[in-house]
Amino acid sequence: MNFSSKLLEDAVAEFAKLPGVGQKTALRLVLHLLNRDKEEVQKFSNAVSKLRNEIQFCQSCHNISDLKVCEICASHKRDHSLICVVEDTRDVMAIENTNQYNGVYHVLGGLISPMDGIGPGDLQVDTLVERLKENGVKEVIFALSATMEGDTTIFYLHKRLKQFAINISTIARGIAFGGELEYVDEITLGRSIVTRVPYENSLS
Amino acid sequence: MNFSSKLLEDAVAEFAKLPGVGQKTALRLVLHLLNRDKEEVQKFSNAVSKLRNEIQFCQSCHNISDLKVCEICASHKRDHSLICVVEDTRDVMAIENTNQYNGVYHVLGGLISPMDGIGPGDLQVDTLVERLKENGVKEVIFALSATMEGDTTIFYLHKRLKQFAINISTIARGIAFGGELEYVDEITLGRSIVTRVPYENSLS
Ligand SMILES: [Zn+2]
Ligand SMILES: [Zn+2]
Repeated sequence: MNFSSKLLEDAVAEFAKLPGVGQKTALRLVLHLLNRDKEEVQKFSNAVSKLRNEIQFCQSCHNISDLKVCEICASHKRDHSLICVVEDTRDVMAIENTNQYNGVYHVLGGLISPMDGIGPGDLQVDTLVERLKENGVKEVIFALSATMEGDTTIFYLHKRLKQFAINISTIARGIAFGGELEYVDEITLGRSIVTRVPYENSLS
Repeated sequence: MNFSSKLLEDAVAEFAKLPGVGQKTALRLVLHLLNRDKEEVQKFSNAVSKLRNEIQFCQSCHNISDLKVCEICASHKRDHSLICVVEDTRDVMAIENTNQYNGVYHVLGGLISPMDGIGPGDLQVDTLVERLKENGVKEVIFALSATMEGDTTIFYLHKRLKQFAINISTIARGIAFGGELEYVDEITLGRSIVTRVPYENSLS
């Protein structure tokens, strides 16, 4: 693209570095910001800068938090003997939204991905092992994506955690509720047959 | 969404104000920025802030520019007797990319849209009239979107400009090159029949 202004070009280049944002979309977003009030655009710019510079992570579960220990970890109403291991803060939000879980979390900060050069050392793995050395944890649930990276991470974590006398489980995988059988991919369908549950159990 | 951090929530809220960016996408973009180096995120934040605070518009054509008079308006190689009226800087970029146009531009900064409360006073209309009062302009080309707003704007501008002894034209509308007839919408097809051109002219 031939920009008529270096300032415009720089701003578009920065937006185009965001995932899923191409040059055209970046230009559209930047022109939108140009049409907004200076104060509003400054607010946008400040929110981004402040986020990156002041963000904290919970000392216990490593979820994004404004406190040293997050609200979930600090709560006496949660079951601290149950730890759900997730990839990032979006998974915590999604699980909290279900209102089906009352344990605590452990946020890995990613998944093991040799292709992307992400190994266990880049993730909150050692801190998970440390948490389990303390008394009281009865079960660890892996709630990771049903992808190669998710499976690799579970495989690795399972090796590291089996030294502890705790239950290790993974969330159930299968056909989504309301999903029509003919549209389900083969792998999910195959797995859901292999891991079939007694009919009585499926009614809960 | 239940955010675990106010800083995170604020940043997501700012991104979600951008056109076409929902809450989920905003969260994805913000988490991406959190994974980048502090310096890179500061660069992003600064580019946005600087753009809005330091941007200038060409005194003549009102295109975005880092100079008081843009490169196109300042060029002696361009035909200054020919003014192409466009909505915004994207249109200038698109037309420049065709390498088919050697005149200058006039950037309105929007289109007349009563529904959105945008009238001629919000656009660079008076400055266009002023430019035509100077000697030397022979033709004004309207290169506006083939939408209600585009047509309304052309109708209004035509009324304001017909006092001048200049040619007024609009870019041709019709079936895109490579477009299959059966997929063309009725209005375009109808117009392209009405505004049909002699076969010899279509060969150029
Ligand atoms: Zn926590
Ligand atoms: Zn100019």
